[in-house]
Amino acid sequence: MSDHPTRGRPRRAETDERVMRAAVELLREKGPAGVSIEAVATRSGVARTTIYRRFDSRRELIEAAIGPVVDRPLPPPDLALEDKVRWVLEQVVQLFETGLGRGGVAALINDADPDFTGALRRALAQRLDDLRAQIQSDIDAGQLAAHVDSDALVGLLLGAYLGELLRHGSASPRGGWVEGTVDLLARAVAVSPTEA
Amino acid sequence: MSDHPTRGRPRRAETDERVMRAAVELLREKGPAGVSIEAVATRSGVARTTIYRRFDSRRELIEAAIGPVVDRPLPPPDLALEDKVRWVLEQVVQLFETGLGRGGVAALINDADPDFTGALRRALAQRLDDLRAQIQSDIDAGQLAAHVDSDALVGLLLGAYLGELLRHGSASPRGGWVEGTVDLLARAVAVSPTEA
Repeated sequence: MSDHPTRGRPRRAETDERVMRAAVELLREKGPAGVSIEAVATRSGVARTTIYRRFDSRRELIEAAIGPVVDRPLPPPDLALEDKVRWVLEQVVQLFETGLGRGGVAALINDADPDFTGALRRALAQRLDDLRAQIQSDIDAGQLAAHVDSDALVGLLLGAYLGELLRHGSASPRGGWVEGTVDLLARAVAVSPTEA
Repeated sequence: MSDHPTRGRPRRAETDERVMRAAVELLREKGPAGVSIEAVATRSGVARTTIYRRFDSRRELIEAAIGPVVDRPLPPPDLALEDKVRWVLEQVVQLFETGLGRGGVAALINDADPDFTGALRRALAQRLDDLRAQIQSDIDAGQLAAHVDSDALVGLLLGAYLGELLRHGSASPRGGWVEGTVDLLARAVAVSPTEA
């Protein structure tokens, strides 16, 4: 490498950034089938040889590009129960609607692209583990009912959006479905008067 | 038509049946893209011209074939609350896993095939309206809490399976996720001691 170290580092990071952004754009617009090294090179303006120097394979590029998209913030711990549920539902809608795109969701369900579904399921599992840990800590602190199956709750938080999407073809994070869902899920997990 | 009427009717129904069964098999195996009149003719052994005499278009064939798949039984009205929730979750898993297949679910999310998504959303909407009406009648009878948003509940019943599928790539109707989900949803809609 002939780059001067103090100049070379930022440029390398910037190139990686451009490549990963192009990969995510293609994923969102065309689904995982649209994410080839060729297409990423064209979209990003970075040469294929350079991309292959940074990422060993298409799989590794997809893995690196998906990470930041899936890395959504958990609700602040001191939020009220309803607001926490609303927060997570909004993050789920944004992840799928503006992050991965419908093509990404469809491919995940269909297992259409092993490079993609493997990388996405790993990234998602890690993030959902963090969410489950937060739920468990709220249970331990007596803020959620002791009976709550945190894993089933995570599934419902993730699935609420998909149920809406499946029925109506769209799901807005401000749609009327959100409040009815928040109400049901908050009641499902609230500490009952007899338990408190 | 040279068929004798008393023999012709059953044969016509039988041909329709074969054609529709072939369409559903192709849908399940290959997604809606696999359901062409050509492919249905090959699979069913019924001539294309005969298929076109029965169904005006691919769209009409898909609509006719999907109807019976989506037409799932509602829970018996006198079942206990938990059992009703479990019943619906099982029907949803069966509808998608053994009825429409993953390719069908993915196409619905992706809106990949307007003939298919239009027909399926109409059939699904009708069935879910029936489910919602049953929920509403349970609310009116005081068996479910007055606050329950029946539409949001339908979304969660449909979405629970999809959340599971998305995370793990599979969702069995007898999987461990079912009991945790039944417990959460039953608590979400149960009449609380202070309301009773």
